[in-house]
Amino acid sequence: MTTTMTEIETRSDIAVELVQSAGSDASIIAAARVSTAAELSAAALDQDPTESEGLINFLMKGRHGSPFEHAQMTFLISAPIFVFREWHRHRVGWSYNEESARYRQMRPVFYVPDERRNLKQIGKPGAYEFVPGEPQDLIAAHLSMEHIYGAAYAAYEDMLELGIAREVARVVLPVATYSTMYATCNPRSLMHFLSLRTKSDDAMFKSFPQREIEIAAEKMEAEFARLFPITHEAWVRNGRVAP
Amino acid sequence: MTTTMTEIETRSDIAVELVQSAGSDASIIAAARVSTAAELSAAALDQDPTESEGLINFLMKGRHGSPFEHAQMTFLISAPIFVFREWHRHRVGWSYNEESARYRQMRPVFYVPDERRNLKQIGKPGAYEFVPGEPQDLIAAHLSMEHIYGAAYAAYEDMLELGIAREVARVVLPVATYSTMYATCNPRSLMHFLSLRTKSDDAMFKSFPQREIEIAAEKMEAEFARLFPITHEAWVRNGRVAP
Amino acid sequence: MTTTMTEIETRSDIAVELVQSAGSDASIIAAARVSTAAELSAAALDQDPTESEGLINFLMKGRHGSPFEHAQMTFLISAPIFVFREWHRHRVGWSYNEESARYRQMRPVFYVPDERRNLKQIGKPGAYEFVPGEPQDLIAAHLSMEHIYGAAYAAYEDMLELGIAREVARVVLPVATYSTMYATCNPRSLMHFLSLRTKSDDAMFKSFPQREIEIAAEKMEAEFARLFPITHEAWVRNGRVAP
Amino acid sequence: MTTTMTEIETRSDIAVELVQSAGSDASIIAAARVSTAAELSAAALDQDPTESEGLINFLMKGRHGSPFEHAQMTFLISAPIFVFREWHRHRVGWSYNEESARYRQMRPVFYVPDERRNLKQIGKPGAYEFVPGEPQDLIAAHLSMEHIYGAAYAAYEDMLELGIAREVARVVLPVATYSTMYATCNPRSLMHFLSLRTKSDDAMFKSFPQREIEIAAEKMEAEFARLFPITHEAWVRNGRVAP
Repeated sequence: MTTTMTEIETRSDIAVELVQSAGSDASIIAAARVSTAAELSAAALDQDPTESEGLINFLMKGRHGSPFEHAQMTFLISAPIFVFREWHRHRVGWSYNEESARYRQMRPVFYVPDERRNLKQIGKPGAYEFVPGEPQDLIAAHLSMEHIYGAAYAAYEDMLELGIAREVARVVLPVATYSTMYATCNPRSLMHFLSLRTKSDDAMFKSFPQREIEIAAEKMEAEFARLFPITHEAWVRNGRVAP
Repeated sequence: MTTTMTEIETRSDIAVELVQSAGSDASIIAAARVSTAAELSAAALDQDPTESEGLINFLMKGRHGSPFEHAQMTFLISAPIFVFREWHRHRVGWSYNEESARYRQMRPVFYVPDERRNLKQIGKPGAYEFVPGEPQDLIAAHLSMEHIYGAAYAAYEDMLELGIAREVARVVLPVATYSTMYATCNPRSLMHFLSLRTKSDDAMFKSFPQREIEIAAEKMEAEFARLFPITHEAWVRNGRVAP
Repeated sequence: MTTTMTEIETRSDIAVELVQSAGSDASIIAAARVSTAAELSAAALDQDPTESEGLINFLMKGRHGSPFEHAQMTFLISAPIFVFREWHRHRVGWSYNEESARYRQMRPVFYVPDERRNLKQIGKPGAYEFVPGEPQDLIAAHLSMEHIYGAAYAAYEDMLELGIAREVARVVLPVATYSTMYATCNPRSLMHFLSLRTKSDDAMFKSFPQREIEIAAEKMEAEFARLFPITHEAWVRNGRVAP
Repeated sequence: MTTTMTEIETRSDIAVELVQSAGSDASIIAAARVSTAAELSAAALDQDPTESEGLINFLMKGRHGSPFEHAQMTFLISAPIFVFREWHRHRVGWSYNEESARYRQMRPVFYVPDERRNLKQIGKPGAYEFVPGEPQDLIAAHLSMEHIYGAAYAAYEDMLELGIAREVARVVLPVATYSTMYATCNPRSLMHFLSLRTKSDDAMFKSFPQREIEIAAEKMEAEFARLFPITHEAWVRNGRVAP
């Protein structure tokens, strides 16, 4: 079989872009105030939310979660398939639409760890710690990965060339292949995601996420902190426990 | 027991106000296009959505539901408790925060049907039809209702006066008592709600909602049609079946 | 209007009956073990689960929740409407079917507190404490309640007699009216419910449920502890935090 | 780099085993009857469900979905990653636990299509039809696939040998790699899955699933039809539309 020679591209980043949002700290405050203020709670939508920091802290501490659902963020994300595999296990309060390997030819773009990625794990399942490898470990990993990515993509293109369906030919593609999706969530479902997909000394319940999804989580957390500063701060102060 | 004499108020309307929204037909189109266009799909956010009517129609017809989740509407609603009872059975894609009879004294505001409300039912369970009653039926119903509302609210206030907890005293309040809530949904969950809570000759699957929740549904449908005109039209054209 | 004189019944209990279940501690263990043992995890279904207490404790402590979803409990519940109102706010992992006041005439059965029910509240919203009232408070409450229940049910029957639709006539019925439902959940969604609907000194996060739903919760917890003893014990030991 | 020479295994089957279930057609009937029969509905649990075929048909036709949630099925599934990728997009009424490439070394087992798998697609996106290829197409595909699987697994093992973490080394593995999971659903969520993941002339809304997930769906449908025969028949008769 003659192998086609498409050049492959490797990336180490996870791209996260906020494309749309609704609501603010004030939306959360209004929703919470309806329990005691009924329609008058809507006034909170036009007021300075910093006056209600105490209320948000009370909600967070007491795990009153529902007020944190009346807002929304939509992100456009580019990440390797193995990252989306973990992401899609978050079912509640999350909506997804993703690039399809049935409907389009996947591009030759693949993930490789960069030098900041700790390559070796120590410790036990459920609580692994990661430490840097030797410089030659990264070189060896890159060589292995790039070799496989090139060969897999060539086999993929060869099969497409023969007329084999995209959904069949794609089976050789590695989980390092980049894909793209829209992911929509609300502050509550995002806090739940962040509590599991970031590792933090501030966390009351420790999580041990894979670094690649954590990079995405950190970028989302930055947008969350910018859009909902009082909520974010209360969440951090209360041990990063999703209400 | 001396009965207090708070005046009661009766209403026949269901108040629905849109307080916040995110997204548009373009958001739905962008989310759908990611399957074949990856990041380039984001261009749809800045384009005229009427060029993609065919795509939205295709999604609706084929019941591809997920693109319709990347948008959000928040409503502030005042309605009797029996309406909220039906509403809260919608679990997926809906968020609620409601006035609390544990945390505040409920106001003496109660529902009575107006002259447009058909009072009598004919037909069999699951497919009831409603027809007008005689004028004196409405008068009799109003008399009965207002008598009970007044007596119940007086008993409620008497118990509060004695120091009995609000959450206990409220047990005498009728399901006609008005309450207030924020309800947040997305176009997909709203279409599901509308397909069950409106009665329409256009509907492929017939529903027989109680008129009071249908009034709320009609008001939400008007906002939905205004914010997402292409989606709404495609939904109607495809038999009002939620994708 | 001649008032019919149906006798009303009052109750103070909340009836909870387990009618069906699937799975056991072993089901949870098997689901957890699939992450490291793949198909061999199924052996756990036939093994003594007490050997895996440590694993269940690890899952609970680390908030690995998904293994606790592969089991199910269905309960048949009779409770006043105001209890079901709180219950139906639990959306995820819960399924409901309830008696319908549109399809049948509701029975004249209503809730009254018994002498064990603390009638008075002290403290602040979100953290109320309840204390007993004077004996005459309970007598006064019963008199008020029974008076309203009798009058409301008579008005209801009068309207039905006139031919007014059940769904309209029912608006006068108090939220103390007993209704019946099937509620189906899994161990994870039940633990979440119990963490919010019971008050316990063992709880890491304090909750302040209304006593009437707590009675139901306590009965469900007893069934849960019987069917899933290792899971229940681990949950209690870890501060009654739903994983 | 010296390449290790682990033998790889290829499979074309999708393994689906029912490991646990709760409920029956009678459970669904009891849940539906509660709306008109309250507690007496529980009698249905001990009665011959064939007497209630009409009720189940009525529920299905009118899209009254909630009674179909009071039952449960748990399946143990072995399938390639690209099948699980599609599966995990079903969020509501589904619970998953899967083998982890972070916690264990994946085995060298990979998917190849067999001679019954149509290899070529015709038609347009969203409505592809698949037709057989030439015999040599299958041979070429197998050669390509086996070559890549062998090389990828060797690279994976080499990296593990160097001490690189499993979660990093696995990035080279193809989406054809077999994984294992428990998937738990209820009749309603299963019918929704089946309506999208099977292709049937009986279907009111046409679906175009990838054949590999359809094989899993067909096996689940067989178990569903065996455990819930009246429900399954009503669903088929009503155009395979999930209620």
